[in-house]
Amino acid sequence: MAQAKNQLLLGTFVQSKTRRELEYLHDAAIAVDKQGRIAGVETGSGNVDAAKTKLLESLGWSEDEVDVHACMPGQFFFPGFIDTHVHASQYPNVGVFGKSTLLDWLEQYTFPLESSLKDLAKARTVYTACVQKTLAHGTTTAAYYATIDVSATNLLADLCLSLGQRAFIGRVCMDRPNFCPDYYRDESADESVKATMETIEHIQKIDANYDLVSPIITPRFAPSCTDELMGKLSALRHEHNLPVQTHISENEGEVKLVAELFPGKGSYAEVYESHGLLTPRTILAHAVHLTEAEASLVAARQSKVSHCPCSNSSLTSGQSRVRWMWEKGIEVGLGTDMSGGYSPSILEAARQAALVSRHVAMGAEDDESRERCKLTVEEVLYLATRGGAKVVGLENKVGDFEVGKQWDAQLVSLANVRDDGTRDGEADAGNVDLFGWETWEERIAKWLFNGDDRNTKMVWVNGRLVHSRP
Amino acid sequence: MAQAKNQLLLGTFVQSKTRRELEYLHDAAIAVDKQGRIAGVETGSGNVDAAKTKLLESLGWSEDEVDVHACMPGQFFFPGFIDTHVHASQYPNVGVFGKSTLLDWLEQYTFPLESSLKDLAKARTVYTACVQKTLAHGTTTAAYYATIDVSATNLLADLCLSLGQRAFIGRVCMDRPNFCPDYYRDESADESVKATMETIEHIQKIDANYDLVSPIITPRFAPSCTDELMGKLSALRHEHNLPVQTHISENEGEVKLVAELFPGKGSYAEVYESHGLLTPRTILAHAVHLTEAEASLVAARQSKVSHCPCSNSSLTSGQSRVRWMWEKGIEVGLGTDMSGGYSPSILEAARQAALVSRHVAMGAEDDESRERCKLTVEEVLYLATRGGAKVVGLENKVGDFEVGKQWDAQLVSLANVRDDGTRDGEADAGNVDLFGWETWEERIAKWLFNGDDRNTKMVWVNGRLVHSRP
Repeated sequence: MAQAKNQLLLGTFVQSKTRRELEYLHDAAIAVDKQGRIAGVETGSGNVDAAKTKLLESLGWSEDEVDVHACMPGQFFFPGFIDTHVHASQYPNVGVFGKSTLLDWLEQYTFPLESSLKDLAKARTVYTACVQKTLAHGTTTAAYYATIDVSATNLLADLCLSLGQRAFIGRVCMDRPNFCPDYYRDESADESVKATMETIEHIQKIDANYDLVSPIITPRFAPSCTDELMGKLSALRHEHNLPVQTHISENEGEVKLVAELFPGKGSYAEVYESHGLLTPRTILAHAVHLTEAEASLVAARQSKVSHCPCSNSSLTSGQSRVRWMWEKGIEVGLGTDMSGGYSPSILEAARQAALVSRHVAMGAEDDESRERCKLTVEEVLYLATRGGAKVVGLENKVGDFEVGKQWDAQLVSLANVRDDGTRDGEADAGNVDLFGWETWEERIAKWLFNGDDRNTKMVWVNGRLVHSRP
Repeated sequence: MAQAKNQLLLGTFVQSKTRRELEYLHDAAIAVDKQGRIAGVETGSGNVDAAKTKLLESLGWSEDEVDVHACMPGQFFFPGFIDTHVHASQYPNVGVFGKSTLLDWLEQYTFPLESSLKDLAKARTVYTACVQKTLAHGTTTAAYYATIDVSATNLLADLCLSLGQRAFIGRVCMDRPNFCPDYYRDESADESVKATMETIEHIQKIDANYDLVSPIITPRFAPSCTDELMGKLSALRHEHNLPVQTHISENEGEVKLVAELFPGKGSYAEVYESHGLLTPRTILAHAVHLTEAEASLVAARQSKVSHCPCSNSSLTSGQSRVRWMWEKGIEVGLGTDMSGGYSPSILEAARQAALVSRHVAMGAEDDESRERCKLTVEEVLYLATRGGAKVVGLENKVGDFEVGKQWDAQLVSLANVRDDGTRDGEADAGNVDLFGWETWEERIAKWLFNGDDRNTKMVWVNGRLVHSRP
């Protein structure tokens, strides 16, 4: 998977420094080696040419041995987005949910579609479209749910590898007869584990060190899993040292159902805890209705949360409290949660995270907590990148432009409005109109609120160019 | 403004029949005469060719005398969108609002920008970009606020006329010294009225019958207007038989301020009522925090409401209750409310109206009212078209495809995913991926949730093609 040449990226780089702060590196140069690793970052030279020369010298690289990519004025490099919760198999249903809420939505829209992907030709069409579309939106890493079908799940892993998206591939486990429909259910806990092993082994064959694609243990969520299955999946996780993904407390009806199905357990989180599924490498999607005690437990186990605002609003699930989770010590990232969420875009998820935080604020008791609930532009872009990297356990590998990390990045381009009110350059530069007087902070805010895949001109994963827009 | 030829549109037409129902006319033909009026609609012929022949015959038009435009498979015609509340002057600030709420947002972001548009070159750049951008998003009618500057406001009217967008042009009136800043305020009520008259007279000169562009009386909102000004504007409205637009109950701080500034009045709505500004041709933007009594008053006066969900979420203003207003008997349309709202798109406003209605539902007391709060795909698209037409008082002229109405329409095109997961046709067909099995209802839902200006291929106003996408 090595690239033919070392690479040099020149221009403006924007990244999350902390939750509160974006860092703007202007007139900078970043060197990426053939393994896609950031070999050097040069920022203090005052102009791009000087930065380039200095960086090449320091690495002992000669200019004719590197591929150079320089930003045009107004463009900038940004870390690739990380989608911490997405059902690739539900992609064809984006936007189609009627007035449903979680449990009827599963039955009416979701299980039938997922089940149909045992048709491998259909699975190829759907998964290819999903991976290409999310890459085009700058998603360089995705934590995917596939379906219960092993062949189709393995195909998703193959496609991520060939199309170049960093991915966690979850073969979905669900064996509880009274919840899962007969036509879409693992026959037993043992069959579910065996099928999961087949996907693990497949991925070991195609990407032995999980450099790009990794299996992830995926008990769908407590209502769809027997205690036996959860116990066995936990053992499998331990044995193979793998991450886990599941759902928690998305919807009030679901929370009640879990209390009925698991009467001995004190809470939804305790169900997972009792099976050893709350690990530092566990991604819990939604976490809308966590109690204080559950949040403390999740924080103590260092499990992570995937916040899915598009989905939570669409399915009337509720308003997840990101600030509250942060204050509890929980790391949070963003998920598109297609097709509970309608959009393939993590930029849209970030935008909706900002808006949903304002709906949380509307319900706050006093002005101070109202203000505190609101997430800033900087904070939602942190969720989309470095927060996401922590959630999927790759914070030492991706999420920002530190030396030693992999070059998982996107080149963003905005439109300049000319004096006559029309726009510079290409015919279709999207909806972010710059008038020339904007600060960099304002440009980023404009990108957050009106940007789309048209603004993402190039996308790299592991240093490989995996998407470019003509 | 007549077109050179009669026109014939062929294919699928989708429109709101009622609030609850979209009507799908397949294999249909619509004839548009040189004045842009729908001269005939033929739907029952079974195929497009038969419909075309029958319609031409019934009108006595010969085929070589008409321009024909036929949908490609999967495309459809939809009524143009109506933006019932938009500040053209704030367009450059879309997405830029930080953590502000209404009153500090006005001071920090809005008044400085609006004031700067007295520079006519800047105004031309900004207004051209705004009109072109909203046209590209399918907005065929807009109720605009400009600024207090007469020349710039008149320029906006000129631009709408030349670019072909149906528009209401509001010269902004604001004379209250203790609220409006010194640098951006009418000198007196009389000066404000005089300036408004200059815009009325200008528009009478350029579009004598207000066929495309009409003045609209625009007291900014109660806190920025003296009683004297509101009284005089009401007289002006009456004298010239003009519509009115203003804001009401957007934000709790604003509601409190109005109570302080107008201690004699029982409510915010009563302030306008007392000056005769609540008319059947009055557009009230926001109406988030109306009391029961105010809603009854607004309904009794047949005044209309512009719902601006993007804005209300962004500025943490609150959650407007569309179903509740409907049940009170108030007509509602959608507004982008740029730049309180971040998006130039009424499709985005419709999407956010659906989402915000679910946030309203989350706060409902029981399951039944929860269900009732939610707006369907059909309902938000009604708000975007026929609802909007009623709000701006043009329901006899635009909003659907009835014989006698003007051809204000858009041609919508969605992407077909091929078997290999890539997409048919053009390079950039946007984010609405069809897999071939979707019902028409599902296609429309997908368009609502992932559509953007890329899907709006052509836009007509009064039969004139005012936007097309290569």
